[in-house]
Amino acid sequence: MKKIAVILSGCGFLDGSEIQESVLTLLYIRKNGFAYDCYAPDENQTEVINHDTQQPLAETRNIMAEAARISRSKISPLTELNPERYAAIILPGGFGVAKNLFTLLKDGQNAVVNQDLEKIIRAFHDKRKPIGAICISPSLIAKIFENKKFYLTAGSETNGKDVLEIFGANYKALPSSEICIDYNNNVVSTAAYMENETIDNVAAGIEKLVAHIAHQIEKAEAA
Amino acid sequence: MKKIAVILSGCGFLDGSEIQESVLTLLYIRKNGFAYDCYAPDENQTEVINHDTQQPLAETRNIMAEAARISRSKISPLTELNPERYAAIILPGGFGVAKNLFTLLKDGQNAVVNQDLEKIIRAFHDKRKPIGAICISPSLIAKIFENKKFYLTAGSETNGKDVLEIFGANYKALPSSEICIDYNNNVVSTAAYMENETIDNVAAGIEKLVAHIAHQIEKAEAA
Repeated sequence: MKKIAVILSGCGFLDGSEIQESVLTLLYIRKNGFAYDCYAPDENQTEVINHDTQQPLAETRNIMAEAARISRSKISPLTELNPERYAAIILPGGFGVAKNLFTLLKDGQNAVVNQDLEKIIRAFHDKRKPIGAICISPSLIAKIFENKKFYLTAGSETNGKDVLEIFGANYKALPSSEICIDYNNNVVSTAAYMENETIDNVAAGIEKLVAHIAHQIEKAEAA
Repeated sequence: MKKIAVILSGCGFLDGSEIQESVLTLLYIRKNGFAYDCYAPDENQTEVINHDTQQPLAETRNIMAEAARISRSKISPLTELNPERYAAIILPGGFGVAKNLFTLLKDGQNAVVNQDLEKIIRAFHDKRKPIGAICISPSLIAKIFENKKFYLTAGSETNGKDVLEIFGANYKALPSSEICIDYNNNVVSTAAYMENETIDNVAAGIEKLVAHIAHQIEKAEAA
Protein backbone atom coordinates (compact mmCIF):
# COMPACT_ATOMS: atom_id res chain seq x y z
CA MET A 1 0.00 0.00 0.00
CA LYS A 2 1.46 3.35 -1.08
CA LYS A 3 1.83 6.01 1.60
CA ILE A 4 1.03 9.69 1.87
CA ALA A 5 2.75 11.94 4.44
CA VAL A 6 0.49 14.28 6.44
CA ILE A 7 1.97 17.34 8.19
CA LEU A 8 0.29 18.40 11.44
CA SER A 9 0.97 21.57 13.44
CA GLY A 10 -0.78 20.95 16.78
CA CYS A 11 -4.39 20.16 17.70
CA GLY A 12 -7.04 22.88 17.37
CA PHE A 13 -7.72 25.51 14.73
CA LEU A 14 -6.63 28.53 16.83
CA ASP A 15 -3.14 27.34 17.80
CA GLY A 16 -2.57 24.10 15.88
CA SER A 17 -3.95 21.95 13.07
CA GLU A 18 -7.60 22.40 12.13
CA ILE A 19 -8.89 19.13 13.59
CA GLN A 20 -11.78 18.50 11.20
CA GLU A 21 -9.62 19.15 8.10
CA SER A 22 -6.93 16.81 9.48
CA VAL A 23 -9.35 13.95 10.22
CA LEU A 24 -11.08 14.32 6.83
CA THR A 25 -7.66 14.19 5.14
CA LEU A 26 -6.87 10.88 6.90
CA LEU A 27 -10.34 9.50 6.08
CA TYR A 28 -10.12 10.18 2.35
CA ILE A 29 -6.51 8.93 2.12
CA ARG A 30 -7.68 5.53 3.44
CA LYS A 31 -10.85 5.59 1.33
CA ASN A 32 -8.66 6.04 -1.77
CA GLY A 33 -6.66 2.95 -0.87
CA PHE A 34 -3.54 4.64 0.51
CA ALA A 35 -1.93 4.55 3.96
CA TYR A 36 -0.64 7.60 5.80
CA ASP A 37 1.99 8.64 8.33
CA CYS A 38 1.66 11.84 10.36
CA TYR A 39 4.58 14.16 11.12
CA ALA A 40 4.91 17.35 13.16
CA PRO A 41 7.76 19.51 14.48
CA ASP A 42 8.93 18.26 17.90
CA GLU A 43 8.97 21.85 19.23
CA ASN A 44 6.83 24.03 21.46
CA GLN A 45 3.78 25.75 20.00
CA THR A 46 4.03 29.51 19.40
CA GLU A 47 1.09 29.93 21.77
CA VAL A 48 -1.81 28.12 23.43
CA ILE A 49 -5.37 29.42 22.96
CA ASN A 50 -8.41 28.49 25.05
CA HIS A 51 -10.81 27.38 22.29
CA ASP A 52 -13.90 28.20 24.35
CA THR A 53 -13.00 31.81 25.27
CA GLN A 54 -10.55 32.19 22.34
CA GLN A 55 -8.12 33.91 24.75
CA PRO A 56 -4.38 33.05 25.11
CA LEU A 57 -3.36 30.77 27.98
CA ALA A 58 -0.08 30.98 29.94
CA GLU A 59 0.81 27.40 29.01
CA THR A 60 3.41 25.59 26.94
CA ARG A 61 2.43 22.69 24.71
CA ASN A 62 4.52 20.63 22.30
CA ILE A 63 3.35 20.69 18.66
CA MET A 64 3.97 16.96 18.07
CA ALA A 65 2.51 15.76 21.39
CA GLU A 66 -0.69 17.73 20.71
CA ALA A 67 -0.88 16.62 17.06
CA ALA A 68 -0.63 13.02 18.35
CA ARG A 69 -4.15 13.50 19.74
CA ILE A 70 -5.45 13.62 16.17
CA SER A 71 -3.38 10.67 14.91
CA ARG A 72 -4.02 8.43 17.93
CA SER A 73 -0.38 8.56 19.12
CA LYS A 74 1.03 7.46 15.76
CA ILE A 75 3.30 10.36 14.85
CA SER A 76 6.98 11.13 14.16
CA PRO A 77 9.14 14.26 14.31
CA LEU A 78 9.28 16.20 11.04
CA THR A 79 13.06 15.67 11.01
CA GLU A 80 12.45 11.93 10.42
CA LEU A 81 10.34 12.39 7.28
CA ASN A 82 12.07 10.75 4.31
CA PRO A 83 10.35 12.01 1.13
CA GLU A 84 11.50 8.93 -0.80
CA ARG A 85 9.12 6.77 1.27
CA TYR A 86 6.02 8.73 0.24
CA ALA A 87 4.01 9.11 -2.96
CA ALA A 88 2.59 12.50 -1.94
CA ILE A 89 2.36 15.00 0.90
CA ILE A 90 -0.69 16.82 2.31
CA LEU A 91 -0.83 19.81 4.66
CA PRO A 92 -4.14 20.40 6.51
CA GLY A 93 -4.78 23.94 7.73
CA GLY A 94 -5.43 25.77 11.00
CA PHE A 95 -3.65 28.74 12.56
CA GLY A 96 -0.96 26.25 13.60
CA VAL A 97 0.31 26.40 10.01
CA ALA A 98 0.66 30.21 10.13
CA LYS A 99 2.10 30.17 13.67
CA ASN A 100 4.08 26.92 14.04
CA LEU A 101 5.09 25.92 10.47
CA PHE A 102 5.85 29.40 9.15
CA THR A 103 5.55 32.81 10.78
CA LEU A 104 2.91 34.33 8.48
CA LEU A 105 0.77 35.72 11.28
CA LYS A 106 3.67 37.50 12.97
CA ASP A 107 5.85 38.46 10.03
CA GLY A 108 3.59 38.69 6.96
CA GLN A 109 5.66 38.91 3.78
CA ASN A 110 8.85 38.29 5.78
CA ALA A 111 7.48 35.02 7.17
CA VAL A 112 10.15 32.45 8.06
CA VAL A 113 9.45 28.83 7.06
CA ASN A 114 10.41 25.81 9.21
CA GLN A 115 13.60 24.73 7.42
CA ASP A 116 12.99 20.98 7.75
CA LEU A 117 9.57 21.44 6.17
CA GLU A 118 10.90 23.63 3.35
CA LYS A 119 13.48 20.97 2.43
CA ILE A 120 10.79 18.28 2.50
CA ILE A 121 8.34 20.24 0.33
CA ARG A 122 11.12 21.03 -2.19
CA ALA A 123 12.03 17.33 -2.33
CA PHE A 124 8.45 16.38 -3.24
CA HIS A 125 8.30 19.17 -5.82
CA ASP A 126 11.66 18.19 -7.36
CA LYS A 127 10.34 14.65 -7.96
CA ARG A 128 6.98 16.00 -9.23
CA LYS A 129 5.18 14.15 -6.43
CA PRO A 130 1.74 15.62 -5.61
CA ILE A 131 1.50 18.28 -2.90
CA GLY A 132 -1.91 18.95 -1.33
CA ALA A 133 -2.46 22.21 0.57
CA ILE A 134 -5.60 22.86 2.60
CA CYS A 135 -6.99 26.10 4.12
CA ILE A 136 -4.06 28.46 4.94
CA SER A 137 -1.38 25.93 3.85
CA PRO A 138 -1.42 27.18 0.23
CA SER A 139 0.12 30.40 1.61
CA LEU A 140 3.04 28.33 2.96
CA ILE A 141 3.52 26.74 -0.47
CA ALA A 142 3.37 30.22 -2.05
CA LYS A 143 6.07 31.43 0.37
CA ILE A 144 8.41 28.49 -0.30
CA PHE A 145 8.07 29.04 -4.04
CA GLU A 146 7.89 32.83 -3.80
CA ASN A 147 7.19 34.64 -7.08
CA LYS A 148 7.03 31.33 -9.00
CA LYS A 149 3.37 32.14 -9.78
CA PHE A 150 1.89 28.84 -8.57
CA TYR A 151 -1.87 28.62 -9.14
CA LEU A 152 -3.47 28.32 -5.70
CA THR A 153 -6.73 28.94 -3.86
CA ALA A 154 -7.30 29.89 -0.25
CA GLY A 155 -11.00 30.75 -0.67
CA SER A 156 -12.91 33.92 -1.47
CA GLU A 157 -11.32 37.27 -2.28
CA THR A 158 -11.96 38.56 1.24
CA ASN A 159 -10.25 35.65 2.96
CA GLY A 160 -7.89 33.99 0.52
CA LYS A 161 -6.40 36.56 -1.87
CA ASP A 162 -3.84 38.54 0.16
CA VAL A 163 -2.23 35.51 1.80
CA LEU A 164 -1.35 34.18 -1.68
CA GLU A 165 -0.63 37.34 -3.69
CA ILE A 166 1.72 38.62 -0.96
CA PHE A 167 4.09 35.83 -2.11
CA GLY A 168 3.48 36.35 -5.83
CA ALA A 169 1.18 33.37 -6.39
CA ASN A 170 -1.66 33.29 -8.94
CA TYR A 171 -4.74 33.47 -6.76
CA LYS A 172 -7.94 31.64 -7.78
CA ALA A 173 -11.21 32.43 -5.93
CA LEU A 174 -12.98 29.14 -5.17
CA PRO A 175 -15.53 27.91 -2.60
CA SER A 176 -14.53 25.27 -0.04
CA SER A 177 -16.24 22.50 -1.99
CA GLU A 178 -13.86 23.01 -4.97
CA ILE A 179 -10.16 22.45 -5.65
CA CYS A 180 -7.54 24.49 -7.52
CA ILE A 181 -5.14 22.39 -9.59
CA ASP A 182 -1.70 23.62 -10.66
CA TYR A 183 -0.78 20.91 -13.18
CA ASN A 184 2.68 22.34 -13.92
CA ASN A 185 3.74 22.06 -10.31
CA ASN A 186 1.53 19.12 -9.31
CA VAL A 187 0.03 21.12 -6.45
CA VAL A 188 -3.66 21.00 -5.48
CA SER A 189 -5.34 23.30 -2.96
CA THR A 190 -8.74 23.80 -1.32
CA ALA A 191 -10.06 26.59 0.92
CA ALA A 192 -11.74 24.47 3.63
CA TYR A 193 -12.22 26.59 6.78
CA MET A 194 -10.67 29.73 5.28
CA GLU A 195 -14.39 30.19 4.63
CA ASN A 196 -17.15 30.19 7.26
CA GLU A 197 -18.39 26.83 6.05
CA THR A 198 -20.11 23.64 7.23
CA ILE A 199 -18.19 20.39 7.66
CA ASP A 200 -19.93 18.68 4.73
CA ASN A 201 -18.79 21.37 2.27
CA VAL A 202 -15.26 21.34 3.70
CA ALA A 203 -15.30 17.54 3.35
CA ALA A 204 -16.38 17.83 -0.32
CA GLY A 205 -13.28 19.90 -1.14
CA ILE A 206 -10.88 17.68 0.80
CA GLU A 207 -12.43 14.57 -0.77
CA LYS A 208 -11.75 16.03 -4.24
CA LEU A 209 -8.21 17.08 -3.26
CA VAL A 210 -7.28 13.59 -2.07
CA ALA A 211 -8.98 11.92 -5.06
CA HIS A 212 -6.99 14.17 -7.41
CA ILE A 213 -3.75 13.24 -5.63
CA ALA A 214 -4.65 9.53 -5.78
CA HIS A 215 -5.22 9.89 -9.52
CA GLN A 216 -1.89 11.69 -10.00
CA ILE A 217 -0.07 8.93 -8.11
CA GLU A 218 -1.72 6.24 -10.25
CA LYS A 219 -0.89 8.16 -13.44
CA ALA A 220 2.79 8.50 -12.43
CA GLU A 221 2.92 4.80 -11.61
CA ALA A 222 1.46 3.83 -15.00
CA ALA A 223 3.85 6.12 -16.90
CA MET B 1 -33.28 21.99 10.07
CA LYS B 2 -33.68 19.47 12.91
CA LYS B 3 -30.83 19.28 15.39
CA ILE B 4 -28.86 16.49 17.04
CA ALA B 5 -26.99 17.04 20.33
CA VAL B 6 -23.39 15.71 20.46
CA ILE B 7 -21.72 15.08 23.84
CA LEU B 8 -17.96 15.64 23.98
CA SER B 9 -15.61 14.80 26.87
CA GLY B 10 -12.36 16.58 25.98
CA CYS B 11 -10.03 16.37 22.98
CA GLY B 12 -7.89 13.27 22.46
CA PHE B 13 -8.59 9.55 22.87
CA LEU B 14 -6.46 9.03 26.00
CA ASP B 15 -7.98 11.75 28.21
CA GLY B 16 -10.95 13.13 26.27
CA SER B 17 -13.16 12.52 23.24
CA GLU B 18 -11.79 10.30 20.48
CA ILE B 19 -11.19 13.04 17.90
CA GLN B 20 -11.74 11.01 14.73
CA GLU B 21 -15.02 9.50 16.01
CA SER B 22 -16.22 12.98 17.02
CA VAL B 23 -15.42 14.58 13.65
CA LEU B 24 -16.98 11.68 11.73
CA THR B 25 -20.14 12.02 13.85
CA LEU B 26 -20.41 15.73 12.92
CA LEU B 27 -19.70 14.96 9.25
CA TYR B 28 -22.44 12.35 8.90
CA ILE B 29 -24.98 14.43 10.86
CA ARG B 30 -24.58 17.22 8.28
CA LYS B 31 -24.51 14.76 5.36
CA ASN B 32 -27.88 13.40 6.54
CA GLY B 33 -29.37 16.91 6.46
CA PHE B 34 -29.34 17.64 10.20
CA ALA B 35 -27.58 20.34 12.23
CA TYR B 36 -25.72 19.72 15.48
CA ASP B 37 -24.79 21.44 18.73
CA CYS B 38 -21.89 20.21 20.87
CA TYR B 39 -21.99 20.07 24.66
CA ALA B 40 -19.44 19.11 27.32
CA PRO B 41 -19.14 19.37 31.11
CA ASP B 42 -17.59 22.71 32.10
CA GLU B 43 -15.29 20.95 34.59
CA ASN B 44 -11.64 19.92 34.78
CA GLN B 45 -10.53 16.71 33.11
CA THR B 46 -9.76 13.75 35.38
CA GLU B 47 -6.23 13.78 33.97
CA VAL B 48 -4.09 15.00 31.07
CA ILE B 49 -2.10 12.50 28.99
CA ASN B 50 0.78 13.29 26.63
CA HIS B 51 -0.49 11.57 23.46
CA ASP B 52 3.03 11.08 22.08
CA THR B 53 4.58 9.36 25.12
CA GLN B 54 1.18 8.24 26.52
CA GLN B 55 2.38 9.31 29.98
CA PRO B 56 0.36 11.51 32.42
CA LEU B 57 1.19 15.23 32.57
CA ALA B 58 1.04 17.44 35.70
CA GLU B 59 -1.43 19.79 34.02
CA THR B 60 -5.06 20.80 34.43
CA ARG B 61 -7.31 21.19 31.42
CA ASN B 62 -11.02 22.02 31.21
CA ILE B 63 -13.17 19.40 29.45
CA MET B 64 -15.32 21.94 27.58
CA ALA B 65 -12.45 24.24 26.56
CA GLU B 66 -10.55 21.25 25.12
CA ALA B 67 -13.66 19.82 23.40
CA ALA B 68 -14.12 23.26 21.78
CA ARG B 69 -11.02 22.45 19.71
CA ILE B 70 -13.02 19.77 17.90
CA SER B 71 -16.17 21.90 17.43
CA ARG B 72 -14.33 25.07 16.35
CA SER B 73 -15.28 27.00 19.53
CA LYS B 74 -19.01 26.32 19.12
CA ILE B 75 -19.84 24.53 22.37
CA SER B 76 -22.03 24.92 25.47
CA PRO B 77 -21.92 23.55 29.01
CA LEU B 78 -23.79 20.28 29.47
CA THR B 79 -26.01 22.03 32.05
CA GLU B 80 -27.50 24.13 29.22
CA LEU B 81 -28.63 21.18 27.09
CA ASN B 82 -32.41 21.23 26.74
CA PRO B 83 -33.50 17.81 25.38
CA GLU B 84 -36.70 19.31 23.96
CA ARG B 85 -34.66 21.20 21.36
CA TYR B 86 -33.09 18.04 19.89
CA ALA B 87 -34.34 15.15 17.79
CA ALA B 88 -31.59 12.81 18.96
CA ILE B 89 -28.37 12.60 20.97
CA ILE B 90 -25.02 11.02 20.05
CA LEU B 91 -22.04 10.20 22.30
CA PRO B 92 -18.67 9.68 20.56
CA GLY B 93 -16.09 7.62 22.47
CA GLY B 94 -12.59 8.01 23.86
CA PHE B 95 -11.23 7.45 27.36
CA GLY B 96 -12.76 10.85 28.22
CA VAL B 97 -16.13 9.06 28.40
CA ALA B 98 -14.84 6.53 30.95
CA LYS B 99 -12.88 9.18 32.89
CA ASN B 100 -14.83 12.45 32.59
CA LEU B 101 -18.47 11.43 31.89
CA PHE B 102 -18.62 8.43 34.21
CA THR B 103 -15.97 6.84 36.40
CA LEU B 104 -15.79 3.41 34.72
CA LEU B 105 -12.01 3.30 34.59
CA LYS B 106 -11.57 4.08 38.27
CA ASP B 107 -14.64 2.45 39.81
CA GLY B 108 -15.73 -0.36 37.45
CA GLN B 109 -19.17 -1.64 38.39
CA ASN B 110 -19.55 1.16 40.97
CA ALA B 111 -18.95 3.82 38.32
CA VAL B 112 -20.61 7.18 39.04
CA VAL B 113 -22.32 8.92 36.12
CA ASN B 114 -22.28 12.71 35.60
CA GLN B 115 -25.73 13.60 36.97
CA ASP B 116 -26.54 16.25 34.34
CA LEU B 117 -25.77 13.74 31.61
CA GLU B 118 -27.84 10.99 33.23
CA LYS B 119 -30.89 13.29 33.41
CA ILE B 120 -30.39 14.27 29.76
CA ILE B 121 -30.05 10.68 28.53
CA ARG B 122 -33.15 9.65 30.51
CA ALA B 123 -35.12 12.57 28.98
CA PHE B 124 -34.26 11.39 25.44
CA HIS B 125 -35.15 7.81 26.37
CA ASP B 126 -38.47 8.84 27.97
CA LYS B 127 -39.51 10.52 24.71
CA ARG B 128 -38.23 7.58 22.63
CA LYS B 129 -35.81 9.89 20.83
CA PRO B 130 -32.82 8.08 19.27
CA ILE B 131 -29.65 7.68 21.34
CA GLY B 132 -26.39 6.89 19.49
CA ALA B 133 -23.46 5.46 21.48
CA ILE B 134 -20.00 5.05 19.95
CA CYS B 135 -16.91 3.12 21.17
CA ILE B 136 -16.97 2.98 25.02
CA SER B 137 -20.14 5.13 25.31
CA PRO B 138 -22.45 2.08 25.15
CA SER B 139 -21.02 1.14 28.57
CA LEU B 140 -22.29 4.50 29.91
CA ILE B 141 -25.76 3.78 28.49
CA ALA B 142 -25.62 0.30 30.06
CA LYS B 143 -24.74 1.84 33.44
CA ILE B 144 -27.56 4.44 33.33
CA PHE B 145 -30.07 1.68 32.46
CA GLU B 146 -28.40 -0.95 34.63
CA ASN B 147 -29.88 -4.45 34.38
CA LYS B 148 -32.48 -3.29 31.82
CA LYS B 149 -30.87 -5.65 29.32
CA PHE B 150 -30.36 -3.13 26.50
CA TYR B 151 -28.88 -4.67 23.34
CA LEU B 152 -25.51 -3.00 22.79
CA THR B 153 -22.15 -3.56 21.11
CA ALA B 154 -18.73 -2.30 22.12
CA GLY B 155 -16.78 -4.52 19.71
CA SER B 156 -15.25 -7.96 19.91
CA GLU B 157 -15.50 -10.28 22.92
CA THR B 158 -11.99 -9.36 24.07
CA ASN B 159 -12.62 -5.62 24.07
CA GLY B 160 -16.34 -5.01 24.30
CA LYS B 161 -18.03 -7.73 26.38
CA ASP B 162 -17.09 -7.02 30.01
CA VAL B 163 -17.79 -3.27 29.85
CA LEU B 164 -21.40 -4.05 28.88
CA GLU B 165 -22.19 -7.24 30.81
CA ILE B 166 -20.85 -5.70 34.04
CA PHE B 167 -24.00 -3.51 33.92
CA GLY B 168 -26.35 -6.29 32.86
CA ALA B 169 -26.65 -5.34 29.18
CA ASN B 170 -27.15 -7.82 26.33
CA TYR B 171 -23.77 -7.79 24.61
CA LYS B 172 -23.53 -8.24 20.83
CA ALA B 173 -20.11 -8.93 19.24
CA LEU B 174 -19.78 -6.77 16.13
CA PRO B 175 -16.92 -5.29 14.06
CA SER B 176 -16.43 -1.51 13.89
CA SER B 177 -18.04 -1.32 10.46
CA GLU B 178 -21.40 -2.57 11.85
CA ILE B 179 -24.08 -1.21 14.20
CA CYS B 180 -26.15 -2.83 16.95
CA ILE B 181 -29.78 -1.66 17.02
CA ASP B 182 -31.96 -1.93 20.14
CA TYR B 183 -35.37 -1.15 18.62
CA ASN B 184 -37.24 -1.34 21.94
CA ASN B 185 -35.12 1.39 23.47
CA ASN B 186 -34.26 3.29 20.26
CA VAL B 187 -30.55 2.99 21.02
CA VAL B 188 -27.92 2.31 18.35
CA SER B 189 -24.25 1.54 19.05
CA THR B 190 -21.01 0.91 17.14
CA ALA B 191 -17.58 -0.25 18.35
CA ALA B 192 -15.39 2.27 16.46
CA TYR B 193 -11.94 2.43 18.11
CA MET B 194 -12.77 -0.15 20.78
CA GLU B 195 -11.12 -2.23 18.05
CA ASN B 196 -7.66 -1.68 16.58
CA GLU B 197 -9.17 -0.43 13.33
CA THR B 198 -8.51 1.91 10.42
CA ILE B 199 -10.37 5.22 10.08
CA ASP B 200 -12.34 4.07 7.01
CA ASN B 201 -13.85 1.09 8.88
CA VAL B 202 -14.61 3.25 11.92
CA ALA B 203 -16.24 5.76 9.54
CA ALA B 204 -18.38 3.00 7.99
CA GLY B 205 -19.90 2.14 11.40
CA ILE B 206 -20.49 5.77 12.39
CA GLU B 207 -22.02 6.51 8.97
CA LYS B 208 -24.50 3.64 9.52
CA LEU B 209 -25.23 4.77 13.08
CA VAL B 210 -26.07 8.33 12.02
CA ALA B 211 -28.09 7.13 8.99
CA HIS B 212 -30.12 4.86 11.28
CA ILE B 213 -30.81 7.76 13.65
CA ALA B 214 -31.81 10.00 10.72
CA HIS B 215 -34.24 7.31 9.57
CA GLN B 216 -35.70 6.95 13.08
CA ILE B 217 -36.21 10.73 13.30
CA GLU B 218 -37.98 10.79 9.93
CA LYS B 219 -40.16 7.82 10.91
CA ALA B 220 -41.21 9.52 14.19
CA GLU B 221 -42.00 12.71 12.29
CA ALA B 222 -44.16 10.86 9.77
CA ALA B 223 -46.07 8.98 12.48
